[in-house]
Amino acid sequence: MKQVRVGVIGFGTVGTGTVKILLNQRELIKKRTGIDVVLKKVADKDIERPREITLPKELLTTDAWEIIKDPEIDIVVEVVGGTTVAKQFIMEALKNGKHVVTANKALLAEQGNEIFKEALSRGLKIGFEASVGGGIPIIKIMREGLVANKMLAIYGIINGTTNFILTKMTNEGIDFQDALRQAQTLGFAEADPTLDIEGIDSAHKITILASLAYGIPLSFDRVYCEGITKITAQDIAFAREFGYKIKLLAITKILNGEIELRVHPTMVPEDYLISKVDGVFNAIYVEGDSVGSTLYYGRGAGSMPTGSAVTADIVDIAKGVNTMPFDFSEKYKIKPMEEIESMYYFRFTALDRPGVLSKISGVFGEHNISIASVIQKGRSKAGAVPLVILTHKAREKDVLEALEKIDKLPVVSDKSVFIRVEGEES
Amino acid sequence: MKQVRVGVIGFGTVGTGTVKILLNQRELIKKRTGIDVVLKKVADKDIERPREITLPKELLTTDAWEIIKDPEIDIVVEVVGGTTVAKQFIMEALKNGKHVVTANKALLAEQGNEIFKEALSRGLKIGFEASVGGGIPIIKIMREGLVANKMLAIYGIINGTTNFILTKMTNEGIDFQDALRQAQTLGFAEADPTLDIEGIDSAHKITILASLAYGIPLSFDRVYCEGITKITAQDIAFAREFGYKIKLLAITKILNGEIELRVHPTMVPEDYLISKVDGVFNAIYVEGDSVGSTLYYGRGAGSMPTGSAVTADIVDIAKGVNTMPFDFSEKYKIKPMEEIESMYYFRFTALDRPGVLSKISGVFGEHNISIASVIQKGRSKAGAVPLVILTHKAREKDVLEALEKIDKLPVVSDKSVFIRVEGEES
Repeated sequence: MKQVRVGVIGFGTVGTGTVKILLNQRELIKKRTGIDVVLKKVADKDIERPREITLPKELLTTDAWEIIKDPEIDIVVEVVGGTTVAKQFIMEALKNGKHVVTANKALLAEQGNEIFKEALSRGLKIGFEASVGGGIPIIKIMREGLVANKMLAIYGIINGTTNFILTKMTNEGIDFQDALRQAQTLGFAEADPTLDIEGIDSAHKITILASLAYGIPLSFDRVYCEGITKITAQDIAFAREFGYKIKLLAITKILNGEIELRVHPTMVPEDYLISKVDGVFNAIYVEGDSVGSTLYYGRGAGSMPTGSAVTADIVDIAKGVNTMPFDFSEKYKIKPMEEIESMYYFRFTALDRPGVLSKISGVFGEHNISIASVIQKGRSKAGAVPLVILTHKAREKDVLEALEKIDKLPVVSDKSVFIRVEGEES
Repeated sequence: MKQVRVGVIGFGTVGTGTVKILLNQRELIKKRTGIDVVLKKVADKDIERPREITLPKELLTTDAWEIIKDPEIDIVVEVVGGTTVAKQFIMEALKNGKHVVTANKALLAEQGNEIFKEALSRGLKIGFEASVGGGIPIIKIMREGLVANKMLAIYGIINGTTNFILTKMTNEGIDFQDALRQAQTLGFAEADPTLDIEGIDSAHKITILASLAYGIPLSFDRVYCEGITKITAQDIAFAREFGYKIKLLAITKILNGEIELRVHPTMVPEDYLISKVDGVFNAIYVEGDSVGSTLYYGRGAGSMPTGSAVTADIVDIAKGVNTMPFDFSEKYKIKPMEEIESMYYFRFTALDRPGVLSKISGVFGEHNISIASVIQKGRSKAGAVPLVILTHKAREKDVLEALEKIDKLPVVSDKSVFIRVEGEES
């Protein structure tokens, strides 16, 4: 029976899940694949702290280099996280002739081109199933299951923290700060939640998916990225009146050879399957030219789901599955955000005077923005009322220019809000 | 560059999709995988009929044996369908040393053990991604993506025809016969719809998924199978009152080493993602012990989605991916249907007299069936009114025995209806 020996660097959440699976499912994997995955060593700075699984002393080390330099280890699992020491571990593992499995989306999105080139030049493999969508085998689905498809569009809810927060806000009518605090209490958000709530984690992940979809270099610095911190309970309520939910979507699509690459809060028709993905769950909608619409749903994080993905990568590498490499030569154009076209939701805070709507729609008209529907509610004693407008498809550049003008109108008393809208044009 | 030569037997719906993809995506697949898939020959009894793609004469033959005996062909694609000549083609292709790719769920479910054994003994591969879930790469997901998981449960909407019919009935309040006619007009149901509406097609597919999940021989003759022909608009309306939708689910799960294997109309809580899968779409919910809840959604049929799956199989076989074989030695027990436990929905047609509910609940009590909720609506001039009851978990055997007694009660004027219910116990 073919044996493959694995060293795991990082005995935290993902490391623990991986180790548990490697030990508990060893016989199952043997039976299913004919491959015996042997856990040879686990490294962590802290090997004393009690964990969900207790390992024999000889399996543990505080020195990651013991794994990287061990000539008997075939595959190094990097689940340390971060973009500094993790990169060093991966590059040195490759230089020592080892395949690498990693869940490190930040590192791959930001410095993956260098890492993949190094692996490619040495005929080694990088498994990164766990880097996007946790336990959902989205990388395998895109590279192998949909290999016969030109990818037309991907829409992903690929950050559980923000989806939990938006779900709470939607279901309970609470504000962002309250929902964030609840997420932190439950362990779904970190003490410093910036990476999640500002959309950066989603941007890391869509960078990886876009490279798989279109065969382009990893282009994290080209992703337009906008988080959910400015979403209010009020906008969620208005969205509902129009039949939409607000989700943080990571989007990449191709049109006339130009790729869009963006992360932002998005209004999605409430009868779309993806708008029903709630809580910490992730879902990735993939549209291929042959397969049409598909969607993949599951837990986007957590010890065991992520460990499941890491283990699948280990087995694939052991089987010698020749996965599709990134193509670093591909010529491509990423569309500047100003040039994208979308439908838009606007919320203006307008003085309750006759002629406000006509002034605003006048500016819209000058910028080729056509109105689809309007909600104007009651009268306010203070004189300021929300005026909400949904538009047909418009160009982002036109929208930004129109907004600048509108926000200078004397009848507009507060900074205007806009959210991009997906779905069929009405 | 590695070349693989393919012959396609059957130039119908799936054959046409496959041929289109093999020709149109040849360069894309080369670039992604380094494999050049060459379409060598296409066989069909009728090669004159115009199709969506026109092939050069020399690629076409009316004689399938030309493909099977061609020493230059590596992979034979069988998309003829049916269980007679298709089996002969596959077995002879194997005997001639060729790998086989097929979309034929009926043949695999009913006679697959023999076919897989033949392939195994010759070191050949059978690709069957297209046999379940059309374009959804569910076979790959289960065998490779979730390789590290013990499968706990699978719930599938894996027949587009019946899902279309139930969706129509639900959204428009129409009866089964009307919805079936609409499906036939639109080409979503065949002139003889038996295989679909009686649940047999779903049973074929869940047979295949259960074998993958639990490593057991294909056990089509052990699947409990009940179609949707008896579902009424009335039951759909009552289901909605309780917060459920009615879906034709194919279910396999394991509990204490016993496997359940069944297809029947099922009431699913309307807030479950799978109950939102409408129209001809398919979705498969897979619960693994590591990954937790996952769901995969897409088109379950059609020329191009199925061709996408066939092509992915061809590429995998060309890459030499060593897929998990079925295990024919596994000892297992499939639970008799009478022993399963479920919640139940009952609709009784009862004379509108005091004491009906007490009589029925008396019988329930004798058979350990505990009532969760009741709907009893208005009074009828004819004296017969529907009495609807939801139960807690009960044993199927007890339910059948209770029903037999209840249907003999003088206050019950028509045969009672029951539908199994999934979801959390309330």
